[in-house]
Amino acid sequence: MTDATPGVIGTAIATSTPDAIYVRDRNLVDDLLGKVDFTSMIFFHLRGRLPEPGELAVLNSVLVAVMEHGLTPSSITARLIYSSSPEAMQAAVAAGLLGAGSVFLGSMEDAARILQEGVRGIEDGITDAERYAKEQLRRRLDARQTVPGFGHHIHRPDDPRTPRLLAIAEENGVAGPHVELLRVFSRVMDELKGRHVTVNATGAVAAVLSDIGFDWGIVRGFSLIGRSAGLVGHLREEQEQPLGRHLWALAEAEVPYLGEKGEQ
Amino acid sequence: MTDATPGVIGTAIATSTPDAIYVRDRNLVDDLLGKVDFTSMIFFHLRGRLPEPGELAVLNSVLVAVMEHGLTPSSITARLIYSSSPEAMQAAVAAGLLGAGSVFLGSMEDAARILQEGVRGIEDGITDAERYAKEQLRRRLDARQTVPGFGHHIHRPDDPRTPRLLAIAEENGVAGPHVELLRVFSRVMDELKGRHVTVNATGAVAAVLSDIGFDWGIVRGFSLIGRSAGLVGHLREEQEQPLGRHLWALAEAEVPYLGEKGEQ
Amino acid sequence: MTDATPGVIGTAIATSTPDAIYVRDRNLVDDLLGKVDFTSMIFFHLRGRLPEPGELAVLNSVLVAVMEHGLTPSSITARLIYSSSPEAMQAAVAAGLLGAGSVFLGSMEDAARILQEGVRGIEDGITDAERYAKEQLRRRLDARQTVPGFGHHIHRPDDPRTPRLLAIAEENGVAGPHVELLRVFSRVMDELKGRHVTVNATGAVAAVLSDIGFDWGIVRGFSLIGRSAGLVGHLREEQEQPLGRHLWALAEAEVPYLGEKGEQ
Amino acid sequence: MTDATPGVIGTAIATSTPDAIYVRDRNLVDDLLGKVDFTSMIFFHLRGRLPEPGELAVLNSVLVAVMEHGLTPSSITARLIYSSSPEAMQAAVAAGLLGAGSVFLGSMEDAARILQEGVRGIEDGITDAERYAKEQLRRRLDARQTVPGFGHHIHRPDDPRTPRLLAIAEENGVAGPHVELLRVFSRVMDELKGRHVTVNATGAVAAVLSDIGFDWGIVRGFSLIGRSAGLVGHLREEQEQPLGRHLWALAEAEVPYLGEKGEQ
Repeated sequence: MTDATPGVIGTAIATSTPDAIYVRDRNLVDDLLGKVDFTSMIFFHLRGRLPEPGELAVLNSVLVAVMEHGLTPSSITARLIYSSSPEAMQAAVAAGLLGAGSVFLGSMEDAARILQEGVRGIEDGITDAERYAKEQLRRRLDARQTVPGFGHHIHRPDDPRTPRLLAIAEENGVAGPHVELLRVFSRVMDELKGRHVTVNATGAVAAVLSDIGFDWGIVRGFSLIGRSAGLVGHLREEQEQPLGRHLWALAEAEVPYLGEKGEQ
Repeated sequence: MTDATPGVIGTAIATSTPDAIYVRDRNLVDDLLGKVDFTSMIFFHLRGRLPEPGELAVLNSVLVAVMEHGLTPSSITARLIYSSSPEAMQAAVAAGLLGAGSVFLGSMEDAARILQEGVRGIEDGITDAERYAKEQLRRRLDARQTVPGFGHHIHRPDDPRTPRLLAIAEENGVAGPHVELLRVFSRVMDELKGRHVTVNATGAVAAVLSDIGFDWGIVRGFSLIGRSAGLVGHLREEQEQPLGRHLWALAEAEVPYLGEKGEQ
Repeated sequence: MTDATPGVIGTAIATSTPDAIYVRDRNLVDDLLGKVDFTSMIFFHLRGRLPEPGELAVLNSVLVAVMEHGLTPSSITARLIYSSSPEAMQAAVAAGLLGAGSVFLGSMEDAARILQEGVRGIEDGITDAERYAKEQLRRRLDARQTVPGFGHHIHRPDDPRTPRLLAIAEENGVAGPHVELLRVFSRVMDELKGRHVTVNATGAVAAVLSDIGFDWGIVRGFSLIGRSAGLVGHLREEQEQPLGRHLWALAEAEVPYLGEKGEQ
Repeated sequence: MTDATPGVIGTAIATSTPDAIYVRDRNLVDDLLGKVDFTSMIFFHLRGRLPEPGELAVLNSVLVAVMEHGLTPSSITARLIYSSSPEAMQAAVAAGLLGAGSVFLGSMEDAARILQEGVRGIEDGITDAERYAKEQLRRRLDARQTVPGFGHHIHRPDDPRTPRLLAIAEENGVAGPHVELLRVFSRVMDELKGRHVTVNATGAVAAVLSDIGFDWGIVRGFSLIGRSAGLVGHLREEQEQPLGRHLWALAEAEVPYLGEKGEQ
C-alpha cells in the first residue's frame, strides 16, 4: 500500500499560500469545504481520493459503532481529568484516548492483521480459508489465548452490532474476502468449541475496514477518531451534570486502606 | 442550555443490555447504525436529537475546516511520539491533541463567548450590535490585546475559509444573529483600525457553531474531534514515510548549545 | 531571574560528545554521577549551581510532601489507564499528571505569585506586609473567591504538613520574607474571618520554594516531579494488586443511567 | 516479589485523618517529612522500607543518569506543547513522557528481564552465566535483532556512564549477580562479534536496579521519574528563552511539500 520513496523527506498532506490551503493537492476552500462531509474528508485524507458510496457507508457505520461505550476507563478518565483541569479540555480528551490501549484496541488491530494475512495467503494460493482459520484458531485455543474478534463479556450469544455491520457492507456492495473469511472463522470456531462463540464488533469492524482497503496498521486510528467524539460528548455532560467528584468519592469510600503489606 | 437536575448523579449518555446498546435512549443497532452518518451521530450525542439538514451542513464544514493544518506543533508532536512509541498510536494522537491548547483553541472559545454574550445582550435589549462591538473591540485594542477571531499570520488580507464558512451557513438557512454580529465586528474593526483586518477561520467557526445552537463551552471540542482525524492521517503518512527521526535530527543540528548561562 | 539573550536561539541544558555528556557545562560522569543526589541534580538543572544544605533540605521536604495523596483523580486515572494499556506505563503516568491541573496546582502557583509580588512590593517600599495582606485577602473574600494557600476539606483546623514545612525552612536557616509574609497573611485572615482558617500545604510549599529562590512560574513543576514518583508507586501496586477493573465496575454499578434528558 | 492477596480489593499506599497523613503506615509529617530525602521516599513508597546506604547511592545515580538527554523527541515535544498551551505545564510534561515509549524504555525493561530471568535460572541450577549469555545473544544476533543494553549511536567504543554506574554499585557494596551477569554478557558479546560492543547506560541501569531488588516490571518507572524532572528543566528554559516556535518554523522550512502521491 505504501508508495513512499525511500530516503525522501517530506509530507504530501498539506501546504498553504496567503490565499489558499491545499490538502493532498486539493484546494480546501474551493474543492472540499461545503462539498464533502467529515467522513469523506477522513477517507480522502488517508487515501488521497474521495470514497465511493459503499466505502462511505461502511466508514460511517464503523465510526458510529465505536464512538460510544458508556462509562469505560476511557470516559471515566476524561471526566476525572476534566474535573481537575477544566481550563484544558484537550487534556481530558487526551487522557481518555490513552485508555484506548492494547486491551481494547489491540484486538481490533490483531483481528484485521489476521484477516489481511489470511486473504493474502489465499490469494497467493498458499492456503485456503478453512485451513487458515483452523490453524489460527487451534494455535490460539491450544495456548489458551483469547482470539481477536471473538467473545464479549456482556453481549451473548451475539453482539448486536456484528450482523448489522456486516449487512451494511453487503447491502452497499463492498463486502469482500475479509468478511467472507470472518464468517469461515466463526463457523470453524463454533465447530472447535462445540458451541456458538460471539463474533464481537471488533471482529466485524476489522473485516469491513479491511474490505474497503484499509491496512491493519491504521485500523486503531478509526477508534481514536470515533472515541474522541464520544469523549467530547461525555465532557459536555460533565459540564452540565458533573460526575468527576462523585467518581473520586466512590473510589475513596469503596477502596479500603489495607495497612502495611510488609517490606519488599 | 443545561437541563441537569442539581444533586442528581447519573449519566444520560449510554447503557447496555445483553442484546442491545442504547445511546441517549435510541437503540444503536436498530435506529442509528447504517442510518446516520458520523457527523449526525456527533450532533445527536451532544444534543439528544438528530440535526436538521442545515445544521448538518454547517457541522460538516466546521469539522472539515479544522481537521488539517499541515506541520504544526500538534502534528509534529504526534509524529515525534509515534516514532518513539509505535506500539501506542493512542499516545501519539493524545500528545498531538495536547498541542490544541489556549494558543490555538482558546481564541475559538473566546470568540464564541463574545458573540454569544453579545447576542444575549442584544436580545435582552441591554445593548445593540454596533455599541457592543465598539466596546469589546476598543477595550481589547486599547489594552493591545489580540482580538479573538481576527488576524492571521499567513492568510492576508483574507482567510479564504471565512467567507466560505459563512456562505455555507447562509446557503443552508442557518446563519443567524451570531454571523450577523461577526459581520458588525468586522466592519467596526476596520473603522477603528483604519484598514481591513482579516476575519480568521476561528471567528467564522465560532459564529456558525453559535448559530446552530452550540454553547461556547463546548466549541473547543469540535476542534479536538477534527484534529484527531487529521493526526491519524499524519500517523498514516509517518508509517509509510517517516519524518520523526528527521525532525529530531533537525532540532539537534539547528539548535546550538549555548554553554552555561550562569547561576540563578 | 531570566538571563536569556533576546533573539538568541539555543539551549544551555545539555550536549554530548562520543565520550562525554555535559549537563549545564558539567561533565555528567566525572562531576555529577555518584557525587550528587537526585534532588541536588534537580536543583542544579534548574539553577545552574548545586544547592546549599538548607536549600537542599527544603527542596527534599517539598518533593516528599507533594509525592503522595492516596486515591485522587490523578492516581485513579493512572490505574485505569494502566489497566487498559499495560504495555505503555508512560501513558498511565502521563494521564495521571494531566490530573494535576488548575484545581490542584493552580492554587500553589497563585499562592507563590501573590507572595512573590508582595515581597517585591515591600522591598520596593510600595507597600508593607500588613497592608498587602489586607488588600489581597479583602478583595478575594469580598468576591467570595477561594484564597490560594488557605482552607482544606479534610485537614482542620490545621494541615499537619504546614508547620513542619515552615519549621524545616527555619531550622535550616532559609526561611525568609515569603514565609514571614505567609504568617502575616494567616494572622490577617483569622482577624478578617473571626476564626482560625487552615493554612494548607500548598501555601507552605509556595512560601518555602519562594524563599529558596524559585520563580512562581516553575513552582507547578515540583508537584509534577513529586507526583510522577507517587504515580509510579501506584502502578507498582496496580501490577501486584489491581484496582483498575474494580474502579471501572464501581462506576458502572453506582452511576445510574438516567434515560433521555430531552432535546437541546 | 508480590504479596498481594488474590481477590482482595484495597490499597496499602496512603490514608488520611483530619490531623494526619499516613504513607505505607508511617506518619508523613512525624516520620518522613524533614527526615528522609526524596530518593529515599521513592524507595520507601515502592518497597515499604527505607533504603540501605548502598541502595540509596545506586538509586540516586540511576535517577541522575536518566534525567537529562538534551534535545530528544521527549524534550522537543514538551517544548512544543508548552508553547501551544502555556497555561497547562502538566500537559507539556505529560506529552514529553509519552515519548518515553518502547523505542527508548523498552530496551531498559527488556535488559532487566533478561538479567533477572538469567540470575533466577542460575540460582535454580538450570543454567550457568556463560551458557545463558551465549544462548540469549546467539538467538538475537542470528535473528539480526538489537540486543537490549548493547550499542549506542553516539557513545563509542564505550558509554561513559556504564563503568561509572557499575563502579558506584560496587563501591557501595550492592553489586551482585546481575552486574556480574552483565559483565559475562559483555565478554561473550565481544567474542561472538569479534570486536568490542558498547554496553550502554540502559544495560548498566538494568543491572544495578536489579541488584538492589527492583523487579523488571517497574524499571521503566525510574526513567519516567527522572525524565519528568528533566522535562521541568526544559520548560523552565522555555519560559526564559523559548525554542518552541523556532522548532515549528524549522519543521515548516525544512520539510518540503511533496504534492500528491496518488490514490491508495
